[in-house]
This record gives sequence, C-alpha cells and structure tokens, in this order.
Amino acid sequence: MLVAVTMDVSLPADLPEPVRSELLAREKAYSQELQRAGVWLHLWRCAGRYANLSVFDVRDNDHLHEVLWGLPLFAHLTISVTPLARHPSAIGSEASVPRPT
Amino acid sequence: MLVAVTMDVSLPADLPEPVRSELLAREKAYSQELQRAGVWLHLWRCAGRYANLSVFDVRDNDHLHEVLWGLPLFAHLTISVTPLARHPSAIGSEASVPRPT
Amino acid sequence: MLVAVTMDVSLPADLPEPVRSELLAREKAYSQELQRAGVWLHLWRCAGRYANLSVFDVRDNDHLHEVLWGLPLFAHLTISVTPLARHPSAIGSEASVPRPT
Amino acid sequence: MLVAVTMDVSLPADLPEPVRSELLAREKAYSQELQRAGVWLHLWRCAGRYANLSVFDVRDNDHLHEVLWGLPLFAHLTISVTPLARHPSAIGSEASVPRPT
Amino acid sequence: MLVAVTMDVSLPADLPEPVRSELLAREKAYSQELQRAGVWLHLWRCAGRYANLSVFDVRDNDHLHEVLWGLPLFAHLTISVTPLARHPSAIGSEASVPRPT
Amino acid sequence: MLVAVTMDVSLPADLPEPVRSELLAREKAYSQELQRAGVWLHLWRCAGRYANLSVFDVRDNDHLHEVLWGLPLFAHLTISVTPLARHPSAIGSEASVPRPT
Amino acid sequence: MLVAVTMDVSLPADLPEPVRSELLAREKAYSQELQRAGVWLHLWRCAGRYANLSVFDVRDNDHLHEVLWGLPLFAHLTISVTPLARHPSAIGSEASVPRPT
Amino acid sequence: MLVAVTMDVSLPADLPEPVRSELLAREKAYSQELQRAGVWLHLWRCAGRYANLSVFDVRDNDHLHEVLWGLPLFAHLTISVTPLARHPSAIGSEASVPRPT
Amino acid sequence: MLVAVTMDVSLPADLPEPVRSELLAREKAYSQELQRAGVWLHLWRCAGRYANLSVFDVRDNDHLHEVLWGLPLFAHLTISVTPLARHPSAIGSEASVPRPT
Amino acid sequence: MLVAVTMDVSLPADLPEPVRSELLAREKAYSQELQRAGVWLHLWRCAGRYANLSVFDVRDNDHLHEVLWGLPLFAHLTISVTPLARHPSAIGSEASVPRPT
Repeated sequence: MLVAVTMDVSLPADLPEPVRSELLAREKAYSQELQRAGVWLHLWRCAGRYANLSVFDVRDNDHLHEVLWGLPLFAHLTISVTPLARHPSAIGSEASVPRPT
Repeated sequence: MLVAVTMDVSLPADLPEPVRSELLAREKAYSQELQRAGVWLHLWRCAGRYANLSVFDVRDNDHLHEVLWGLPLFAHLTISVTPLARHPSAIGSEASVPRPT
Repeated sequence: MLVAVTMDVSLPADLPEPVRSELLAREKAYSQELQRAGVWLHLWRCAGRYANLSVFDVRDNDHLHEVLWGLPLFAHLTISVTPLARHPSAIGSEASVPRPT
Repeated sequence: MLVAVTMDVSLPADLPEPVRSELLAREKAYSQELQRAGVWLHLWRCAGRYANLSVFDVRDNDHLHEVLWGLPLFAHLTISVTPLARHPSAIGSEASVPRPT
Repeated sequence: MLVAVTMDVSLPADLPEPVRSELLAREKAYSQELQRAGVWLHLWRCAGRYANLSVFDVRDNDHLHEVLWGLPLFAHLTISVTPLARHPSAIGSEASVPRPT
Repeated sequence: MLVAVTMDVSLPADLPEPVRSELLAREKAYSQELQRAGVWLHLWRCAGRYANLSVFDVRDNDHLHEVLWGLPLFAHLTISVTPLARHPSAIGSEASVPRPT
Repeated sequence: MLVAVTMDVSLPADLPEPVRSELLAREKAYSQELQRAGVWLHLWRCAGRYANLSVFDVRDNDHLHEVLWGLPLFAHLTISVTPLARHPSAIGSEASVPRPT
Repeated sequence: MLVAVTMDVSLPADLPEPVRSELLAREKAYSQELQRAGVWLHLWRCAGRYANLSVFDVRDNDHLHEVLWGLPLFAHLTISVTPLARHPSAIGSEASVPRPT
Repeated sequence: MLVAVTMDVSLPADLPEPVRSELLAREKAYSQELQRAGVWLHLWRCAGRYANLSVFDVRDNDHLHEVLWGLPLFAHLTISVTPLARHPSAIGSEASVPRPT
Repeated sequence: MLVAVTMDVSLPADLPEPVRSELLAREKAYSQELQRAGVWLHLWRCAGRYANLSVFDVRDNDHLHEVLWGLPLFAHLTISVTPLARHPSAIGSEASVPRPT
C-alpha cells in the first residue's frame, strides 16, 4: 500500500565534517537500496528547502515504521505521514505491487 | 517540471444533486484528459479525507496555474502547491519529460 | 493493521429533526456492524466535545478509506488519521488480527 | 476512567550512550509494570515518528499526573492529554475497571 | 476531581429573539443548579470575549462529559478541556470534595 | 481584580542540581507567600504537563506584572494571561477582595 | 490601568444597508463618547484591514469587559486583549489617570 | 506615519552578567533617545511577559527599519510590525507629526 | 515607500452572475488605473490559488490604507501587509519614486 | 518563470566575528552576481526583521533549487516559496525573460 511522507532535515550545526559526510553517505545508500527494492517508490526534493517528498510502497504500517525508523538521518528528521488510497479518477495502475508477506 | 499539489474538497451542503453529479463528472473527465496528456502525472486519494495528493508535470508556473484554475471544482478546493526538484539520491529518471514550449 | 482516527462532528444547524435522527441512527448501525466485524476496534467519546477517538483494524489504506468514506456522517466530519505500529515496549498481543485479503 | 495520551520523545543529541540506554531501559520497565497493573491499557507506536499513542485507566486526574510525572523520560516528552468517556455507540464493555480507591 | 474548561460561545446571527432568550435562560438555570450542587466550582467571564473559564469538580470523565453535553448552549460552544491535579506548592485544601460514586 | 495565568515550565537540561533545587525552593516559597497574602488565589497543576493554571487577585495590570516578573522561575516560563471579569450567571461572591491601593 | 485591544470586524454580507449604516453610526458615537471620557485612549486603523488597534484606560477587568461588551458591533468582532503595564524605560507619564472607583 | 511594533525579548541563558547589564543599559539609552526625539511615541510593557508594545512615528518604512535594526537587543528580539492609519472615528489629532524628510 | 501585500479572494458562492462580472470589471479597472499611476508597482498571480502578491509604492500608511480600502473586492479579501525597506545588497535603484505629498 | 521567496535569517549567536563577516560578504557577492544575471529579479528587506522578500526569474524548479541551495547562508535560512504566474489584470510586461535552456 502507498504512503506519502515528507521529511524535513535539520542537521546540528556542530556536527564534525567526517561524521556528517559518513551520515549522508549512509542515508543515500539506504535510500537507494529501498528504491531498488521497490519500497521507496518516489523521491523528490522540495525546491528551496532541505526536505523531500517521498512515496513508499509498504506491506503495512509496521513495515512503514521499520523503514522510516531505520533511516540513518532519523534523529534529525521531522516526518509527516499521509496514508494514500487509490483515487477513483486515476487512470493508471498506480496501485501497490502485491508482494508476499 | 514537477509540482506536488494537495487539494481539499469542500462542496456546499446545499448543492442540488444533478448539479453536483454533473460537476463531479466534468472534474473526472478533465482530470483523466490531463492524465492521458502526461500533465497530471500522479493522482492519489488521501485516505479518510475528501482530498487528493497529485503530482503535475508542467512547462512552468503559468502552465501550472492554467491547469489548476481550469479545474471544474476549483471554487470548492483548498489548494497547496509544493514545487519539486530532482533529488540527488533518486535513482530513477523521475524527471519531467522535455516537451516543446 | 491499526490506525487511530479522530472524528470531530459538525452538523448543520438547519438539519430538520427527522433527517438528523435518521442520519444518526444509520451512523450508529454502521459503526456497530464494523465493531462486530472486528474492524472498528475501539470507540471512545472525547469528553466534552462532539468528537470521538477510534482505532481501526484494517487490511490496508484502501480498506481504511473505504470504511471512513462510507460513514453516513462523512460529509460532516473533520477526520485526522494516525497510522499505528507495534510498540517495542507493549507487552500485550495488541497486534492486528491477520485476515485473508 | 480512561484518558488518551500522546507522547512525542525528543532526546538531547549529546546524551552519552550509557545514560541513554539506562534511561530507555528504565522507561520500558516502568511502562511494562503499569501495563501489567492494568493502568497503561494500550500502547501504540505512531508509525514514522518517535512518539506513542497510549490509553490509561486511572482513578482520577491526580493519579494520571502521578503516573505521567513518574515517567523516566518525562523531561524529554511533549505530552498531550485527551480525557475519554464512554461512547453511546460502543458495543463493548470498554469501560474502566472499577478499583478500590 | 477538578477540570478546567474554556467555552467560547458563537450564537447563529439569525436566531430569533425569543428562542435566544429562552436558550440563555435555560443555560443560566442549568449552570446555577450545577454551581449550587458543587459541581461547577468556578465560573468567570473572559474579559472582552463571549467566553468563560470554568472549573468543574466531577467524579470522573464520564461525569464531566455528561455535564458538558447537557449544556443548553452545547451546539454553539467551542470547548477546550484541561484536567487539573493538586499542585505540590498549593497551600490550600483545594482538592475535590470526596463524594459517593 | 482576577486574572487567569497559565505557566509552562522549561528548565535547561544542564542546570546543575544544587542550582535547580535552590531555584525550585525559592519558587515554592515565593508562591506560598503570595497565596497566604491572598494574591495567588488558585494554583493547580495541569495533569501530565510541567505547567500550572493559576488565578491571581491583583490591584491592576502593573501589580500583575510585578508579581509575575518576580517569579524565581520567570526566565524559564512561557506565560499566557487571560483577564477575568465577573460572570453574570455566577452565584458565588467570587469577586476580587477590595484592598487599599 | 491600560489594556491594548485588537478588533477585527466581520460584517455579515447580507446585512441590509439601513441596518448597517445605523449600526456603524452607533458604533462611532459609542466610541467617541468613550474617547471623550478618557476611557478609549487611542484608536488606530490597522492599514489595509477592517480592524483597529486600541488602547483603553479602565478601572479594572470588569470595567474593560463592560466597555467591550457594550460595543454595538460586539457580535461581529474578533477581539484580542493584551494587558499593559508601565515600561521601566518609558520616559513619559504614560500611566493610567487615577480615577475614583 | 505611525507603526505598531511588538517585541518579544529572548536573552541567551549563558549571557555573562556584565555583558547583559551593559546590553540592557544601551537598549534603555537608545530607546529613551528615540522617545525624546518623538520617534518612539509609546512604549508599554506587556503584563507578565518579557515583551513590549510600542508605537513609532517614522518618515517611512526605511526609517522604521533603520530604527529597529539599530536596537542593541535586535538579535534577541522577535518583532512583529503593524502599519497604522488614521481611524475615521478617532477624535484626537493622533496623526504623525509632519517632519522635514 | 514600498509595501508587499498578499490578497486572497473569497467570493460568496451565491453572488449572482451579473453582480460578479461587474465587480470583477471594476476591480480590474481600479487596479489598472493604480498601475498606470505608478502606485500598484507589481501584480502577480499566486499560481494555483485565487490570490495575488502585489507591491505598492505609497506615500505612507494612510495612503496604503486608502488604496486597499478602495478595492471593489475589499469585503471579499483576506489581506496581509509586509512593509518593505531597501536591502543593502540590492544593486538596482528599486527605491520608491519621490512624489510630492 | 517567476517565483517569490521569503528568507528569514537566523545566525547562531556563537558564530565568531571573522566567520560571520566572511559569510555575509560571500552572501552579498552571490546575490549581486545573480541580480546582474537577471535571475534574482527583486530583493527587498522586510522592514524590522532580519528577512527579505525576493522574486526570482528561473528556468524551472530545478534551477530555483540550485540557486537557493547555493546560498552561502542556506543553512541559516527559513525559506518559503510561492510560485507566481502572470496576473490577467497586470498591464506591464512583467513576464519572465525567455532564455535559452
């Protein structure tokens, strides 16, 4: 099932550079792995803000929480979650891909 | 270029039934035409609300305004607009399709 | 999976009494049918407000939307949705009951 | 009587690891003791947030305050409290268990 | 136990005068009866607003809800509820009067 | 005249223990002196929050400011002030005690 | 004592013209009478809004409420009240004029 | 022309005492100089808050900004600005004093 | 001097068509006259909303109020006003044109 | 295409003076280069605040993000973005300058 998530990033000003780089590299790897797995369906930058709008395709809310809680940047994110359903006027097959539980 | 739009619908309680049905039918047709044209890229229902989250692929802000202003339901919508840019961690080619201006 | 939902009711002042009574009776019947089916897991009144806090056990977000959209009072509700996950400190088995899809 | 409580956790970034672990362990023990005593009736994780939604069954508001004030994480919580009453459409016996004062 | 309640009144502009007077008279009688019964402990006007700040002494949240739901003006009120507990620095005996349940 | 005041306390995490204890002791003494003087009329804990709801009986706004500004915790408080007037439905003599200016 | 008051005016769209004119004339007369009496000390228009910022010099909060409650436009106003005290850096004698109670 | 300004002061907790005293002394001198020059027309303390409500009489918005930007406390202030115009019901001559540009 | 103004338009649903057209025509004429006079310096549509962002070049706040109060749509607008000053990094001569008072 | 942007600046109190000066000098140079290039079309100070209102003329949202992300002060800014479209009542040619992509 699909869920829209907005993440606003707020990194501490005093984060030492190597820690910061390593953190961002881990975040990128984590994100790309989930994109390849078909879980992190869309990832867009909100123009002009250190923030993104994402759409996830998850089994259920426990799966959603596990994915977000695991984000390397989790402690620095303000996250807002909007559950999505199929829209009656949508023409595409923009439904969640059925996957074995 | 991509733009995320949230629309909350608030129809007047005293809208006569035929007017209401005709309005919703026109909205659906308008939406599906823009989906087929590749302008209304994504259309999701926000679960539990009379609202949708959409992503549009438009030439520019004038195009965006023309599309939204033309919505048959426009007078009954509360619209919020979030310009989107490509995210450096996105693996897909989720960019706007270049189109002749 | 579990979802917390808050519903604030705002009935139009000019709703004729028989319409109002019939509406509330249908809402009650709808709610009790879903409670008996194990979908509407908890239903509490928010003390001092015409509002309730509910917990639903649904298959997915499409199911959640279908249930809420079908509420006889839907047009008069302000709904807010909070997806729930299992808490690592919870001792009970307060998980969603697995059901055939 | 029942009370819904939402707790948002915000731990200081510079909390040393052993202090943090010990704090979380004490929080878990405190919570599970109250769950076993039938005071902390429900405990759910809000998906995607470091937060929970809980329902307490307390004797009165003094009891509620004593329970929440005693939380090992209290200084790091943003707490919001919603008093609950029995809903006229609820079919279950979801009332507070009478206990000697 | 004690509960603070703020009520903001918003009467419809088109309420016919006799209906309005009768409504306000019933509200006053209801309020004074509860004051005499020791349930509506304090009642103050918020200066410059059609609103009041009140403190109730109720058995529990069900009692609180019953009292507020019964207000003749209930449909025209925006109510906010703040549960109160005894303050460790309070010198008085400002506790709720024990009453048989 | 009467004034309702809500105070939310936010102590710095790095306040050394003896400073903290001494500060809280001074706050308590200051509060109890004003309670005995009939200026700090009511003092309630907001259940579940490090906050209180108070009612002051002061000569005027200058007196109110002098009293609040003098709070040992003043620098750590978020204060909101609601001027109160006598309510036409109040049966008690809950008026301010006239005092020589 | 001094109190700052902001009033936002919202007149019903369907107010018949003679009613509207008469209402505004009464409001103006009421306001000017209080200005001449030294109670309505300052009256400024908030530029670009149907609103004013005013400063009143009243005996106490009961006096303040009586003055505002008596405004012919009261039912159409959103009022916010800010109690004022003498500022230690003020050089003027901008204190309230002592008046017999 | 007149402008209402609200300033909320938030001094850092770790400001060394001599720095703090010197800062406040400079703020007071700056304010009194502008009061004597007829630019800082009114200065009131908001009762119970570390804040003031002021009215300035400035040549234009550039003058306003120059005056506020120059406040010794500027970096510690949250400022909100409300442009004022003459009110049609005001009886006084509470207009800005014409001054050579 | 310059002032930024945001106007959100909210026309009543039951405005008869000829009244509506005539109102919008008068608004357009009023706006264009002020644009030609150099008072309404910029006028942009906020994309996707029935709203505009404008910049006015006015003599003072009284002038600003007179201009906005005179808008044919004034009763249907939610207006927010932001006074502007010259920015020290601006390279242009984007200052207000001096005009005889 | 045009975009309005509001930037509120919040510099850390403990930024050493040379770092601060160098940062502000780089911001000014960056801003003036974009002004000369016709991308940063308008730059105004919000009077009384450490903030600006700007209008950018960009190719698309990716261009907008690249420009804002590159601001030397980016980490210290709270940015809000409002896409602009041509207003039907605007008489000028205030359109974006067509530029090669």
